[in-house]
Amino acid sequence: MTIRHAVTLSVGDELLAGETLDTHGRTIAAALAERGCRVLEHRVLGDDVANIAAAILAATASADLVVITGGLGPTLDDVSREALAEAMNEPLVEDATSRAHLETWYAGRGRVMPAGNVRQAMRPVSARCLENPNGTAPGLQARMGAALVVVLPGPPREMRPMLEGVLNEQLPGEPRPAIVIRAFGIGESDAAERIEPLMRRDQKLPVATTVSQSLLSARIRGNRPEDRELIESLAAQVEKAWHPYVFGRDDVTLPMALGAEIKEAGRTVATAESCTGGLVGSMLTEVPGSSGWYPGGWVVYENARKIEDLGVAAELIERDGAVSQSVISAMAEGARRRAGSDYGVSTSGVAGPDGGSADKPVGTVWIAVADEAGIDARCFHFPGGRSVIRDRTAKTALQLLRLRIRGDASDLLWQRDASS
Amino acid sequence: MTIRHAVTLSVGDELLAGETLDTHGRTIAAALAERGCRVLEHRVLGDDVANIAAAILAATASADLVVITGGLGPTLDDVSREALAEAMNEPLVEDATSRAHLETWYAGRGRVMPAGNVRQAMRPVSARCLENPNGTAPGLQARMGAALVVVLPGPPREMRPMLEGVLNEQLPGEPRPAIVIRAFGIGESDAAERIEPLMRRDQKLPVATTVSQSLLSARIRGNRPEDRELIESLAAQVEKAWHPYVFGRDDVTLPMALGAEIKEAGRTVATAESCTGGLVGSMLTEVPGSSGWYPGGWVVYENARKIEDLGVAAELIERDGAVSQSVISAMAEGARRRAGSDYGVSTSGVAGPDGGSADKPVGTVWIAVADEAGIDARCFHFPGGRSVIRDRTAKTALQLLRLRIRGDASDLLWQRDASS
Repeated sequence: MTIRHAVTLSVGDELLAGETLDTHGRTIAAALAERGCRVLEHRVLGDDVANIAAAILAATASADLVVITGGLGPTLDDVSREALAEAMNEPLVEDATSRAHLETWYAGRGRVMPAGNVRQAMRPVSARCLENPNGTAPGLQARMGAALVVVLPGPPREMRPMLEGVLNEQLPGEPRPAIVIRAFGIGESDAAERIEPLMRRDQKLPVATTVSQSLLSARIRGNRPEDRELIESLAAQVEKAWHPYVFGRDDVTLPMALGAEIKEAGRTVATAESCTGGLVGSMLTEVPGSSGWYPGGWVVYENARKIEDLGVAAELIERDGAVSQSVISAMAEGARRRAGSDYGVSTSGVAGPDGGSADKPVGTVWIAVADEAGIDARCFHFPGGRSVIRDRTAKTALQLLRLRIRGDASDLLWQRDASS
Repeated sequence: MTIRHAVTLSVGDELLAGETLDTHGRTIAAALAERGCRVLEHRVLGDDVANIAAAILAATASADLVVITGGLGPTLDDVSREALAEAMNEPLVEDATSRAHLETWYAGRGRVMPAGNVRQAMRPVSARCLENPNGTAPGLQARMGAALVVVLPGPPREMRPMLEGVLNEQLPGEPRPAIVIRAFGIGESDAAERIEPLMRRDQKLPVATTVSQSLLSARIRGNRPEDRELIESLAAQVEKAWHPYVFGRDDVTLPMALGAEIKEAGRTVATAESCTGGLVGSMLTEVPGSSGWYPGGWVVYENARKIEDLGVAAELIERDGAVSQSVISAMAEGARRRAGSDYGVSTSGVAGPDGGSADKPVGTVWIAVADEAGIDARCFHFPGGRSVIRDRTAKTALQLLRLRIRGDASDLLWQRDASS
């Protein structure tokens, strides 16, 4: 039987209480989309046996696959096991293999299994347990009429490998073709206008745009392997329309794209961060192998650090303030010189909530890139609260460096007059 | 009419395609929970007029309040406006005030309104538009039978203030009492065992635990203002049972808790980061006012930086490797000395995916805190992939510093033999 339509359920009172962010809906949808299975709906439910059981039954009426995450833990508020048994109208029995796995797991860590944890070895009679190499809770897999129902543990590092095992078994074969174009530094409305004809609903494969965490994406999804050529042509049109803001496709992140380009160019970069406090360095070092092109950097939060560690002249700070063209330039050049790197990138701004003035309101940020040819220093005014301003600052610094490597001087979103 | 039960809908193909993470379910649930309104269910739906309209109708049957987010943007795949009109069986008309707002918004930015954006000024005849000071899309508010239906724009910084406005108007009054205890550095099973009697379902207000991004939480929620005393007593019991791993309550983050304690102690801390690449500094500077106790730090990704910037002896790195007790200790002490701070915190480890060895597999991380009394250096073995290892390293560094300030030498989760 081919699996084409899924319903996903995330279980946990904490998800409906606003306590914990549900990320499984996205993770599972992405994995299913790649394999040509469409998620009809995602539901988030509380820890209630009757409600979960009813949702499982309803889902099996419309979907070939029902994936439930959460509620398999050792604590008393974990009831997904019981809910599946109720939906299947079957009793729970102890699974000998799972019981043995549980005992081995604890013994291997020199710990005694807490008494409550034995519940995790229970399964509905006709269901089977899915082995969990990364934790104590086994998953469950059962057939209900035409639908396959799978219950996976909540912790992501336990859920993901188990999900992959299920999908490899149940949805083998060629993934459905799709391309996602990733961009940063252009506004969503402007970007949409540039590709408006491609986005029309009457197109064979309409392009859809989204913005998440200030990153712009354009998604193009085919239905069959033969759509690949059209998708590629559409992707190329979007890339051209959004040039030079496009940094990659699919799972490529801005730090990964920058890392690949700087590595390709055989160059290195050092950082000098004030308002981002290490966020730029943290993003760069997300990239495996970044040690090849990132020697390190300085978090110069107080002015004394800017002066002592980067050689910024105290008089500049005194005269222009730490958030200024002169100081940001000296920071970028100081980092470059001290680290002996090809590029130096610096950030200094007013992230708020305090510290703003009429002249330099919260959101005012200077960013600079220094290299052997000189210094490109720009002033931005980022909207948002403290964490959004910091995140936008760090991403803009990465994109500014990326454009500098390519010799492109285009303006970026939220840039003020360069002379301000 | 009192609003007690809500259903929330998040709209967007990108959410079901696994493209974008839906965070609005959590945000809205948290805001509603505080005001005594329970979310019965959260549904994620695609950009389809008929499906959204059907979901709105179904939700109005069970809930007093239906909150829809997303699908109000200027692009052609934004159809929540049309779906609400269909659910209400009303035509869309142009709202003059919203049209004027749109034109002013663009004029104020020296831009011409893209032609497509005028759609954003449409509303169902009997609905009213909600002003959006932070963007172009107005929200919508309508009554359908006994239920209030609200449509809010997708971008969080536009959605949140509009949500707050709606809730202040519709759900005024005393928030429902609740306390969330926040902890880090103890395993979930161990933590649950310590408070097992408080978690039983037959308790008047059972305590529920969750783990998210390695942070442990215990939630205690009352039903009426009179429950406040019981909640406080339960919270105190959890805090005692989980001591010293509890760092705060409710919205307090680990960096905020640490910041408050270090500020209270009148002390300062500098950072020396290798495998975290700036993440510890980034977490510390999330805290407004961190400039008062965090002068800055060093990202010493390459060994030359450890030697030049922090005075780590090259022979130590040669002899013991960069991931070792001797080097991590010299890094912490070097940061403390160079910054003239009271504490120095350092991280060095194998974050993977490459670089592991039989002796020091991926996940092996040394963390140290130096102060005038000496150096506490510990070796950890963190499970997970690169980003999880880095995140756990940074949080453990913060918690280790917090315990050091309190004079507490307790072991932390994932700690190996301290002598290794």
